[in-house]
Amino acid sequence: MLITLTTDFGLKDPYQGAMKGAILSVNPDAGIVDITHLVSPGEVIEGAFVLLESYGFFPKGTIHAGVVDPGVGGKRRPILVETEKFFFVGPDNGLFSLVLRNEKVKRVVHLTKDKYFRSEVSKTFHGRDIFGPVAAHLSLGVSPVEFGAEITDIREISLPGPSRGNRVIAGEVIYIDSFGNIITNINGGDALSFGPDACVELHGIGIEGLKRTYSEAVTGSALALISSFDFLEIAVNAGNAGKTFNASVGDKVLLRAKG
Amino acid sequence: MLITLTTDFGLKDPYQGAMKGAILSVNPDAGIVDITHLVSPGEVIEGAFVLLESYGFFPKGTIHAGVVDPGVGGKRRPILVETEKFFFVGPDNGLFSLVLRNEKVKRVVHLTKDKYFRSEVSKTFHGRDIFGPVAAHLSLGVSPVEFGAEITDIREISLPGPSRGNRVIAGEVIYIDSFGNIITNINGGDALSFGPDACVELHGIGIEGLKRTYSEAVTGSALALISSFDFLEIAVNAGNAGKTFNASVGDKVLLRAKG
Amino acid sequence: MLITLTTDFGLKDPYQGAMKGAILSVNPDAGIVDITHLVSPGEVIEGAFVLLESYGFFPKGTIHAGVVDPGVGGKRRPILVETEKFFFVGPDNGLFSLVLRNEKVKRVVHLTKDKYFRSEVSKTFHGRDIFGPVAAHLSLGVSPVEFGAEITDIREISLPGPSRGNRVIAGEVIYIDSFGNIITNINGGDALSFGPDACVELHGIGIEGLKRTYSEAVTGSALALISSFDFLEIAVNAGNAGKTFNASVGDKVLLRAKG
Repeated sequence: MLITLTTDFGLKDPYQGAMKGAILSVNPDAGIVDITHLVSPGEVIEGAFVLLESYGFFPKGTIHAGVVDPGVGGKRRPILVETEKFFFVGPDNGLFSLVLRNEKVKRVVHLTKDKYFRSEVSKTFHGRDIFGPVAAHLSLGVSPVEFGAEITDIREISLPGPSRGNRVIAGEVIYIDSFGNIITNINGGDALSFGPDACVELHGIGIEGLKRTYSEAVTGSALALISSFDFLEIAVNAGNAGKTFNASVGDKVLLRAKG
Repeated sequence: MLITLTTDFGLKDPYQGAMKGAILSVNPDAGIVDITHLVSPGEVIEGAFVLLESYGFFPKGTIHAGVVDPGVGGKRRPILVETEKFFFVGPDNGLFSLVLRNEKVKRVVHLTKDKYFRSEVSKTFHGRDIFGPVAAHLSLGVSPVEFGAEITDIREISLPGPSRGNRVIAGEVIYIDSFGNIITNINGGDALSFGPDACVELHGIGIEGLKRTYSEAVTGSALALISSFDFLEIAVNAGNAGKTFNASVGDKVLLRAKG
Repeated sequence: MLITLTTDFGLKDPYQGAMKGAILSVNPDAGIVDITHLVSPGEVIEGAFVLLESYGFFPKGTIHAGVVDPGVGGKRRPILVETEKFFFVGPDNGLFSLVLRNEKVKRVVHLTKDKYFRSEVSKTFHGRDIFGPVAAHLSLGVSPVEFGAEITDIREISLPGPSRGNRVIAGEVIYIDSFGNIITNINGGDALSFGPDACVELHGIGIEGLKRTYSEAVTGSALALISSFDFLEIAVNAGNAGKTFNASVGDKVLLRAKG
């Protein structure tokens, strides 16, 4: 059974190694896959977005452990969410809330049965002491209901939504990737409904028309297209749009119908 | 069956996780090994060099998926190369051309059979939608000829070659690693043919003699040796030669016979 | 059988990929787990600390390969250490000496039998040519005594120890993690013996009392607590203590009893 990890632990410190050890001590045959350990420290929304764009490509039954957990050891609950296709294990702080909009939730369990935790549970590292071991026991076939009581409320966070007018959609930048591609919160279907001639505007600079590939634009020039994750994206062919536009998460983006 | 990944996807974004998910959705038992996801964005030659220095250490039958693909979705073909020992899956943009100089090519296939692709193929992310799934089907035993028509031409790139005189070889820097070791395009055999007293020159600074280990030089001083990948290398014992020499890829390096 | 890797190879260069290939060429079923490849180049003490904080969470029988090896190819010996629970493979330069304080050593073997090495052994990359292959043969069940002669001395390094007075402990910073958490060499039990009202001082700034979780402090303010690895730690809730305090490894830290 596969267990994926999405954390802000970094790749230099002993944290992700210790969490993997704790998983493998429970189930030495667990197949562990790193989604990322480079979520910005404590940035729950960023972690939720990275999970949103990767979790669905894994096979049915995959256990997604997510640990971006600035409130570790405090009042936030450790939870397990079972959906029709996947399991999610981590803190109840909104980290799974973007993903869960797409999934049919079967149950949410408040993790309280400490026999499934590491024998000593620290106050500051629940990835190693709770979430890793619970994911490992789950991968061994322990039923979700064994881990604690079912609960019905979970913490939500939301990506800001775009506001849509008749001939304009006002959205914003939600993520800038390592290539400098600027991903907005305007979804692909909405953008395409304005036709291939629509104009995208960021920081007062207009980009005319929607392309299908980076290489349809002249090398070094800006383009807009629908990203592989189905959001409107601004890129520079063979360049870095984030730097070219000096863009930041939260910057306003307009999409206008032509004419 | 092992599948290695060499990409420029970075380790922070959802891309490498999504590609792994797409592989594991086809073959949940695939053994995935990261060579690197930190090739500089779009730098095909750099990716080709990293592959060159790592692919050959894997067992016979390993599938090497490489995705440094600035032309994704455009005219460059997706290909599969079968050699006597390995398989290579990725874009036909030269990424495999350094490796293939060392290998006996059995066939090259233009990937066109979309039944081996993800059900939806984006225009901008063929690692997830084509190369990952093809590598996974290959790891399940699908014959290379099933993936499309055989082709006979593939795109070449080349590392610049050194020019060799009677008592001097003029080469250049082709890679600077994370330790700051400066790797040149002068191969080990050629360098050694000038004897252990040969002098190496970079930016007008001469280094006398070839050492065998870093620790043969005084701590903090520069040395030249044959790298573990059989190229002439300039290093600083317990230091960073790249910074000391302020070196860049493309800088000229001279090797002179003594006297 | 699991093989973990702790190295300073970085994640961009071909080194860690080549080492994994060399392991898998000997044992294609080896389960390889990355602890880190981002130890600062040549920093043996840092590598020893990362190993110390992660090795123990892995299952009995795990083989920990560690390669932070500035003296590669020189006089330092390649070794294998067998303890009651684990195996350690790497250079005899102190990299395992912090770990071995906690473990019962059964034997130390000087790796000399080159039939367990790669067929060609370079002078500069023993991770690929010696330590990886030896770890892989060990994972196949080769007995430790087959790899060379037993030796009785191994190289020690030590973390600086704190000095303890009646009402004060004078320690120092030994590690600053990616979150900016400042880890000291004052162990948890000693710190707690001064009671929850003890005062911690770094760079002349006092922090009153020991907290149990980050979130017990006001957002943005400094706190002291016992880390998940049982050392006294200075943190900033939702912030970066390393930057706030402009702290470096080696800085003095005082813990004083109250009043």
